[in-house]
Amino acid sequence: MTGFVDPRLSINQATIKYADLATALRVTAEAGVQGIGLWREPVNEVGLQTAASILADSGLRFTTHCRGGFFTVPEGPARRASIDDNRVAIEETATLAAAGATGSTAILVLVAGGLPEGSRDLIGARERVRDAIGELVPDAAAAGVTLAIEPLHPMYASDRCVVSTLGQALDIAADFDPAVVGATVDTFHIWWDPDVLASIERAGREGRIATYQVCDWKTPLAADALLSRHYPGDGVIDFASLTAAVEATGYDRDIEVEIFNQEVWDTDPRTVVERTAAGFAASVSPHLRARVTN
Amino acid sequence: MTGFVDPRLSINQATIKYADLATALRVTAEAGVQGIGLWREPVNEVGLQTAASILADSGLRFTTHCRGGFFTVPEGPARRASIDDNRVAIEETATLAAAGATGSTAILVLVAGGLPEGSRDLIGARERVRDAIGELVPDAAAAGVTLAIEPLHPMYASDRCVVSTLGQALDIAADFDPAVVGATVDTFHIWWDPDVLASIERAGREGRIATYQVCDWKTPLAADALLSRHYPGDGVIDFASLTAAVEATGYDRDIEVEIFNQEVWDTDPRTVVERTAAGFAASVSPHLRARVTN
Repeated sequence: MTGFVDPRLSINQATIKYADLATALRVTAEAGVQGIGLWREPVNEVGLQTAASILADSGLRFTTHCRGGFFTVPEGPARRASIDDNRVAIEETATLAAAGATGSTAILVLVAGGLPEGSRDLIGARERVRDAIGELVPDAAAAGVTLAIEPLHPMYASDRCVVSTLGQALDIAADFDPAVVGATVDTFHIWWDPDVLASIERAGREGRIATYQVCDWKTPLAADALLSRHYPGDGVIDFASLTAAVEATGYDRDIEVEIFNQEVWDTDPRTVVERTAAGFAASVSPHLRARVTN
Repeated sequence: MTGFVDPRLSINQATIKYADLATALRVTAEAGVQGIGLWREPVNEVGLQTAASILADSGLRFTTHCRGGFFTVPEGPARRASIDDNRVAIEETATLAAAGATGSTAILVLVAGGLPEGSRDLIGARERVRDAIGELVPDAAAAGVTLAIEPLHPMYASDRCVVSTLGQALDIAADFDPAVVGATVDTFHIWWDPDVLASIERAGREGRIATYQVCDWKTPLAADALLSRHYPGDGVIDFASLTAAVEATGYDRDIEVEIFNQEVWDTDPRTVVERTAAGFAASVSPHLRARVTN
């Protein structure tokens, strides 16, 4: 690869979904990218210790673990299983962060979950998210892991994530230590929000920006709305204002690109990583002040 | 039709999109529904005076005119044409409201418009919406028409409507007389909003609820996201809390059902109106306190 690769770029593994863990680590490192965010499924496919070992060998920083959450079901065995599974995810996050290169961060991204089957009680579902996080905070604190509540675009509010705005994520996080509970700031999910710049400023002021993630929005949406994420620069999101707002908070860590897009997934992963790095360099890098110095 | 038909139900003509104006008026009245919201295209297909005449003959209340707006292009001939076209829509609204049965309301629904082609300046687009409304206010006031800013679901923010929340619509409306500029409160667009109940309360307090519209949300979304609206009761929206919040403001006028849905459009319009009335009776009527008494 010949173009500039931003030292703060991290590839979220979902962007190259069909690559196994070893391949994902290899193509990311070979492209000159310094960080990677991993997903639980491909990690568990090889086993946590093997995953940690090949991550260490890759020389990459580990930036987030995706994902915990799915907290909206009422009390009962399914909820207990979900909480327990999140405890496992917290341990995975700590192990992987310890295995990654210097500057790795122990961040577990949380997707809240949608309305339980047959329910219309959005307010109740949101309260159960807060309760679940409260249960997990002692485990996360003990493991040195930050739980990063991710607001998802409101089009996913019913079936995937009842946390729909950054302000709402911050309201939930407010009950807890910022070292343990923060927010995921993902441009795709929040770019439309009339309060987005004020919410980013607040997130910074309250010490809650656990991770900044970028990808682009354009229409028409994919037939499966979940797969509508695009390379930075291919859509309408103003990365200048959003990135400047995040930078202004003092955030100076890695920035992930996470793309769910069938066409991207059907492309050779090496090409995808190079294309991602180029889009990032053109659309995001010009708006970065600080550099990762580790 | 044998079931209960709520006296406050109004059929928005888009729900029976393929019916011409005469058919839409006839099937709506024959079903025992008392109100209808019209669209500009089918009105202009027969001409405004003919439309007013057959509306008067139908005995139906006229509840809204759909739609004005599309205000986001920068200054130039396209913007002038849009403003002029909105002035025509204001006159249509006044004429139709005068022709409808007692209790008709002169409300023009405004859809703000999306980002101009090639633009990423969401903030600028939003400012141009406010400016355009400011230009139209004298015309609307003179005609006795209320402009009803409609926040659309954030999934339409880039290509259709840069006004995405009720709070944002109220912030725009705040510059103007509530008799002239209000908001459209449509459950489909705002149900997910963590601030929705507070925003409805605020809208009522500020005298801004121009029209309340109901339809349901369910997933998966249609491949064309625009066509994802469903009969009340077929999805996950909690009409109890939203309707109670609207009622608590003192809103006591007609309530429209507006459904964009290919399957609904492909159904015989008489069946659609009956199905709509039944869904409304089951999902919305139990939460209504006041009755239209005119």
